[in-house]
Formats: sequence, C-alpha cells, structure tokens
Amino acid sequence: MKLYIIGTGPGEASQLTEKALEALSRSELIVGYQVYIDLIKPLIGEKETFTTPMRKEVERCKYAVEAAAAGRTVAVVSSGDAGVYGMAGLVFEILEAVGYNHIQVEVIPGITAATSAAAVLGAPLTHDFAVISLSDLLTPWEDIEKRLRLAAQAGFAICIYNPSSKKRGDYLKKACEIIMKEASGDTPCGYVRNIGRQGQTGKILTLRELAKEQVDMFTTVIVGNRNTRVMGNKLVTARGYKDVE
Amino acid sequence: MKLYIIGTGPGEASQLTEKALEALSRSELIVGYQVYIDLIKPLIGEKETFTTPMRKEVERCKYAVEAAAAGRTVAVVSSGDAGVYGMAGLVFEILEAVGYNHIQVEVIPGITAATSAAAVLGAPLTHDFAVISLSDLLTPWEDIEKRLRLAAQAGFAICIYNPSSKKRGDYLKKACEIIMKEASGDTPCGYVRNIGRQGQTGKILTLRELAKEQVDMFTTVIVGNRNTRVMGNKLVTARGYKDVE
Repeated sequence: MKLYIIGTGPGEASQLTEKALEALSRSELIVGYQVYIDLIKPLIGEKETFTTPMRKEVERCKYAVEAAAAGRTVAVVSSGDAGVYGMAGLVFEILEAVGYNHIQVEVIPGITAATSAAAVLGAPLTHDFAVISLSDLLTPWEDIEKRLRLAAQAGFAICIYNPSSKKRGDYLKKACEIIMKEASGDTPCGYVRNIGRQGQTGKILTLRELAKEQVDMFTTVIVGNRNTRVMGNKLVTARGYKDVE
Repeated sequence: MKLYIIGTGPGEASQLTEKALEALSRSELIVGYQVYIDLIKPLIGEKETFTTPMRKEVERCKYAVEAAAAGRTVAVVSSGDAGVYGMAGLVFEILEAVGYNHIQVEVIPGITAATSAAAVLGAPLTHDFAVISLSDLLTPWEDIEKRLRLAAQAGFAICIYNPSSKKRGDYLKKACEIIMKEASGDTPCGYVRNIGRQGQTGKILTLRELAKEQVDMFTTVIVGNRNTRVMGNKLVTARGYKDVE
C-alpha cells in the first residue's frame, strides 16, 4: 500500500541518495524503463521488476499503481529526478483517474540532468535558469519555440533536455537559431553526453558552433547567458560577487 | 591539491548522494556557511572546518582555494546543489582571478531546492520550468521583474528561491502581482519551508492567496502554469499523456 516514486540520478549508482537507496531496499517490486532498471541493477539484486519500452509509460505506471493498491510496496523509478520530465506527474494523474486515494505515495527526489550536466561543465547554472525539453511528443513545437524565445529574451541560462532523437535530428539547430535572434552567437555553451555513465563526455563551444553540432538523446545541453564565460576548461556563469581578485 | 565543491541537498543527511559522502570523507578541511555545516555535522565528525557568516562567501571560498593550493584536500559545501545559487561559480571565479590552474576541482551535484520542494508538494515541475531568485543583493530588481514577467508569458512553471528576507518582506507579493498580469490568480501554487529538516511544512494555495502569504528565507515557492492542478492533496503539472483513465 506504499508507492515510492524515486529519482535515481544521472546514471552511476553512487549518485543516488541514501534516502532513495533505502526506499529501493524496502520495495518488493521495481517498475521502470528497461535501460534505467539496468543501470541500478546492482542495487536491486533479485527483486521483482516490471519494465516496458519507451512510450509505454502509462501502462507501466498503471501496473505500479495496481500493485500498490493490492497491498504491495512498489517503487517507480525514473533516471534523474522523477519529478522533472519523469514519472511522478503521471503516477498522480493515474491515481486521480482511478480514484485510489488510500495509497501512500512518497516522491524521493534525485539529481536531475540540469545540475549533473552543470557540474560536469563547471557552474553554468549558478543564477536564474530555464529548463526546456525539445521533445514535441506531448508539446506543440510552437510552444517550445515560444519558451526558447522568451527564455533567451529574459536572459536565462537555458538547460535543454531531449535535444534530439532520430525523428528530430534538426531540433537543436532550430532551437539555437531561435536563441541567436536574442543572444550573441558567441555565447558560451556546453553539452554532456552519458552523464555519470560509461563514456561520459562534455564539450564547451559557442552557441554558433552548437547550432551545427549533432547530439543524441542521451545528451543534455546548457546555453549560457550574457554572464557566462569560459574559465580555464570550465563553463561558468558569474553571479556578480565583488572582491573576487 | 584537490578541491571538491559539494552540494549537500535539502537538509537531512539521507539526502546526500554516496558520491558526496565519499568526497566529504576524503576531505581534510570542510568550508561552508555555519548553518549548513551544522546540518551535516554527524557526517564530518571531528574534521577541521572553516565557517564564515552569510555574505562572507568570497572570504570563505578564498580560504578554501588557498588551502587546496597549499596541497590539502578541501571540500566547499553548499546546501542544495552547489551549482545553483551556491558556491561553485564563485570558486571558479576566484581560481581564475588568482591564476591557480594546478588545483584539481570536482563539482559534486546535490538535490537542489526546486526538485526537493517539488517532491514534497507532488509533481509541479514535470515539464518546462524556470528558476528565479528574488534576492536583489547581486541582481537589479528590474532584471528580476523582467524574468518573472517573461517566464509567466512563456507558460513556465516557476520555482522561486530566496522569496523573502528581513529587508525584502514584500518581494514575494510583488512577484505574484507581476505573474498575475500574465496568469490567472487561480493558478495552483505551493511552498515548502525547511525542506528535509525538522519542522518541514508544505502548503498548497492559489497564486492570489500566495500574494498575501508571509514566507521566510528558508522557504521555496513553486508557481504552477496552466497545466497545473491540485490532485488530492498534491500539486501536479500534467504533461499531456493520453489514456490515463
């Protein structure tokens, strides 16, 4: 009768919190996307799992809710933070739709890609920032364009989730072009692929260069603002402290 | 010669990642704001610490950099994520100013208040969102106003850090009024005080009600967008999945 919704962080097991580890250990059934279940396999051992492919999120979360309603202790896992483009919202929507308000639900936050990518690159999100997904599966592209444009006008550093997929090969290019109408092409940017996993790579480049870059769906992109600079090999957004020297 | 910049999460020790715990244990000197050092005291035992009051961040980080330059293993700690309104950017700025590029620096991300507050409230940040601080110590108020206005126009859920202080008692009210020019006063919102600490309290209310609320500096506020609803006692931003029922 307990349903945990757990963010497992950016990949490697050492990026889970102790609270998340405890909740996993108390759970009898672990529900998630196969790739993310595999990443935390060493932590869950022989526990029962239920996985579905991508885009079968609703089916997956319904299974978890039904199992919890039947009295089991269940964990729904998302990589990163389950509340940021993860499964937390969907679980609450299902709970409301089926009217199960006797299930005890606890959301356990995880390190989301915005801050784990920022940590790899340096400190580009030290001040106000916006988080925008380029996936138009559930959002009209016009809304995404509007958010990119207004976020750039507002001077936010921008963290881009889901910058690309097979069907959306040119979306990052389109996004960069929108931002470049408001910000200099010289704006320092960066991206990280496979955060916290085997083959993690980070790259720092200008917004103009980023528009020409091919990235994949395992990549998180950060576009700086007018206070972002490259310091050594790090991407840093200065906050404006005096007396630094 | 190693400098860790560690995000210690929202308060309780169980919200640190294993990676952060390992870095703390390897460090000889822990540098931070007294309140946050106290929160993780059980984790650092008898290790040497260096603390300064609020607003003495530059002095604190310079001390850490000098100690690392002298060959010590040093941790600079911030609550939440050190890269989000934390010490990470400042450390890189100081390193650049003094020209110490021989120090090995590693930023270890933590659970930032946006996602830990969201987890307490439900799932209000499931889709695109903006993070804005109301502190005008380092940022002109006009810039903050502009960001609030454009973020609301863009339809972002908005997470507000530093919503109040003794000198800025009416800033949250002002912020809500700016957002209400773009969004309905009925927009569901929430706030959490003392996230992950003794006395944690969360409250869900409308934007109109939020404008009249007195909150303190230990509070994180989340303003929903047009897809945010109250489900049971949770604040949830729906992402638009079909077939939920």
